[in-house]
Amino acid sequence: MSFSPLVDELIESLRCLPGVGHKSAQRMALQLLERDRDGAMRLSNALSDSIVGVGRCAKCQNLTEVEVCKLCSDERRNNGQLCVVETPSDLLALELSHTFGGRYFVLMGHLSPIDGIGPEEIGLDKLMRLVSEASIKEVILATNSTIEGDATAFYIADLLEEQDVLVTRIAHGIPVGGQLGYVDGGTLGHALTGRKPIDG
Amino acid sequence: MSFSPLVDELIESLRCLPGVGHKSAQRMALQLLERDRDGAMRLSNALSDSIVGVGRCAKCQNLTEVEVCKLCSDERRNNGQLCVVETPSDLLALELSHTFGGRYFVLMGHLSPIDGIGPEEIGLDKLMRLVSEASIKEVILATNSTIEGDATAFYIADLLEEQDVLVTRIAHGIPVGGQLGYVDGGTLGHALTGRKPIDG
Repeated sequence: MSFSPLVDELIESLRCLPGVGHKSAQRMALQLLERDRDGAMRLSNALSDSIVGVGRCAKCQNLTEVEVCKLCSDERRNNGQLCVVETPSDLLALELSHTFGGRYFVLMGHLSPIDGIGPEEIGLDKLMRLVSEASIKEVILATNSTIEGDATAFYIADLLEEQDVLVTRIAHGIPVGGQLGYVDGGTLGHALTGRKPIDG
Repeated sequence: MSFSPLVDELIESLRCLPGVGHKSAQRMALQLLERDRDGAMRLSNALSDSIVGVGRCAKCQNLTEVEVCKLCSDERRNNGQLCVVETPSDLLALELSHTFGGRYFVLMGHLSPIDGIGPEEIGLDKLMRLVSEASIKEVILATNSTIEGDATAFYIADLLEEQDVLVTRIAHGIPVGGQLGYVDGGTLGHALTGRKPIDG
């Protein structure tokens, strides 16, 4: 037993969305068809427009519909610092913290040999070219604090060793507002080894 | 700070999906653009195709792309029984139970005067016409066991009073496999008042 072919196809294609299983897809499809056909039409257009229009920035690899994204073409940003992140949402999170005014480079993933994702796939050749050509003094590695993110950071640091740039890794430790009793051992270990003298 | 206009529009339009907030929509949009453009294209096409193609069955109001849906045009089904449900997914759940072989009528909602949903909006005039014209002997009210579902069932039962049909309501009680200790008072009350003699 199933719905009509078109509804079945809609349910099946909604499953490409992350976190959406068969039951949620069915609920979404029926909700759209019963109550929100305007929203569905808008979504359909937004999907096809962005597939055609959105590519990657020639400089930083971030998603954009122009040749060079607005962050890369912003003259006011500091050209001396380059922050390497895994995804556009990491970039957005950093931007929302209003604590960094330099340039970015978006890897669009992390090294994962088991999935066939090597240095080329995350654009490390492009990153090396960028660092050697531009007036970058510091490369900040802001990949995730996961096994793959750490491995990617160390790999990039290795590659950059011969270049005349300072390579740093973002700090790991207790989150602001966090209570020691609820923090896991790994984080506590990082917090202890990364301790700093208090400036008097 | 935001992404590019096309990505922002995609994120905003994904929010028409039920249960999807800003953060999930952002995750979905980036996942589609970074990793699954084929899936996104397929979804876009499925959406526009089904908006254009899927309408309502002329007889039972269920979603279908043909004039009369396959359940209504199935000659093997029992024309004497008509089961009234709220949504296509309720119909699907009943069909999957393989316990009903009659016809259906899908209200596509329930009476909700506060939202402007009256008898006309859920097609009760059509239901009345169907009952008076066809050879229906029993109307089974299988609306949800909620305040609105119950009210809708009683309203329909009232309308059908003058017609020569048996009007029944699906039973409420302990779910199969349910333990009394974990069942709420309302359900227990229904289970008690709906008790039946055991055939010896």
